[in-house]
Amino acid sequence: MKKYKLIIAYDGTEYSGWQFQPNAKSIQEVLEEKLEILTKARTPLYGAGRTDAGVHAMGQAAHFKVEAPVDTRLFRLSLNGLLPKDIRVMEVEEVPLDFHARYSSVNKIYHYHLNLGLVQDPFERAYSWNITNPLNMEALEKGASYLIGTHDFSAFANEATQGAAKKNPVRTLKRLSVVPERIGARLEFEGESFLYKMVRNITGTLIEVAKGKRAPEEMKEILESRDRKRAGRAAPAKGLFLVRIDYPPNPLNTKKR
Amino acid sequence: MKKYKLIIAYDGTEYSGWQFQPNAKSIQEVLEEKLEILTKARTPLYGAGRTDAGVHAMGQAAHFKVEAPVDTRLFRLSLNGLLPKDIRVMEVEEVPLDFHARYSSVNKIYHYHLNLGLVQDPFERAYSWNITNPLNMEALEKGASYLIGTHDFSAFANEATQGAAKKNPVRTLKRLSVVPERIGARLEFEGESFLYKMVRNITGTLIEVAKGKRAPEEMKEILESRDRKRAGRAAPAKGLFLVRIDYPPNPLNTKKR
Repeated sequence: MKKYKLIIAYDGTEYSGWQFQPNAKSIQEVLEEKLEILTKARTPLYGAGRTDAGVHAMGQAAHFKVEAPVDTRLFRLSLNGLLPKDIRVMEVEEVPLDFHARYSSVNKIYHYHLNLGLVQDPFERAYSWNITNPLNMEALEKGASYLIGTHDFSAFANEATQGAAKKNPVRTLKRLSVVPERIGARLEFEGESFLYKMVRNITGTLIEVAKGKRAPEEMKEILESRDRKRAGRAAPAKGLFLVRIDYPPNPLNTKKR
Repeated sequence: MKKYKLIIAYDGTEYSGWQFQPNAKSIQEVLEEKLEILTKARTPLYGAGRTDAGVHAMGQAAHFKVEAPVDTRLFRLSLNGLLPKDIRVMEVEEVPLDFHARYSSVNKIYHYHLNLGLVQDPFERAYSWNITNPLNMEALEKGASYLIGTHDFSAFANEATQGAAKKNPVRTLKRLSVVPERIGARLEFEGESFLYKMVRNITGTLIEVAKGKRAPEEMKEILESRDRKRAGRAAPAKGLFLVRIDYPPNPLNTKKR
């Protein structure tokens, strides 16, 4: 028995999200279908984070088990040969049997892309949120500063379908930076893990601050209220990218070097 | 009578190119159709450069004439409201009656995007050329250095359909830079004007140099031969972007300030 980790990039536009959904095509489903062709066995794939419909990934991680060892380079080439062009396997790596894409991760980075201005960029129309109102980015950054650190983020989380997040809604947001881009700006989020819809809910609320509809200080009040109804609407899925998931050093990699 | 300049960005994927073609949808045709709705008159649009099928633009320029003056801000908003989302009018500006989008231009910038590596980036699959072979970028840069300056570029030009370029195939390539990018690199071309397919033919030949199939010095020999058959194949259309076209200062703008 061997275990492998995949790093996957995908354009989420045409999919119902990462996780299997009845009557809709999911990224996980498409990947499992191709894995079954290669491994000749039903091969469940466990993702690090479930991305919603329309959300993109540059570095989603997932793992699967297989009876016999595979040549990782050939496996990646074959898998990409079978997959549609909007899903790409960037890396295949053997991992120890106790590795779990979801539970072994130690750090996650998400980016949210904002296309600022009256004209929507034609190349980023599926990969950013076009905001036509003038924004006060200083107010946005001030509002964001109240969220850095370890807090109960219940006010920015939607009801989780699984139990763990509900039991403990405390998360540590290590970094929330605003980085200028050709089309406007992106918000970079970094933390050990995030609650369901936390990045999109924070982004949506911060945009209300940047529009002048809320004072930056209100972010602190919303956070402390732990009340989802106090925060703003979630930002659209298409602007969100799961960029990177970090794991502790892989002992199998060290051996090979 | 008034004349207006448009700056236009478009994703060329779904179009037969800038110029009107029988039995195929062109960017020019779609724009003229919407201009006719707004101006209530047949309104020919003159583009600065004809981009081929699949080529993209971030800053195409074009001009049109109209009987009565228009509110440029409202005109842009209305035009974008009518246009499909893969064509966007970025700017509308009044220009003198002697302005011509093609003949008044003094400088043009094109970018060619290379996606280097075995795995094609899912977000750039329609906007770059994926090259899986390892490339020697130093050799590419050396090969490019022979092209900078004023030369007869016949060897890198396809047969022009119009007469001017055929009469004088001498052009000045001011700059050809290699700039690293997330997905690999881009080649930046800058010059007063370019011959038909010149950027794609140069790029295709330089990639053969980078693959080690030709010596960098061969670029000099090909250039001096003035023989199109000596150069390599054109790089694919989808990696090419018309980025910017410069004009002398607009006297109508200066007046307003």
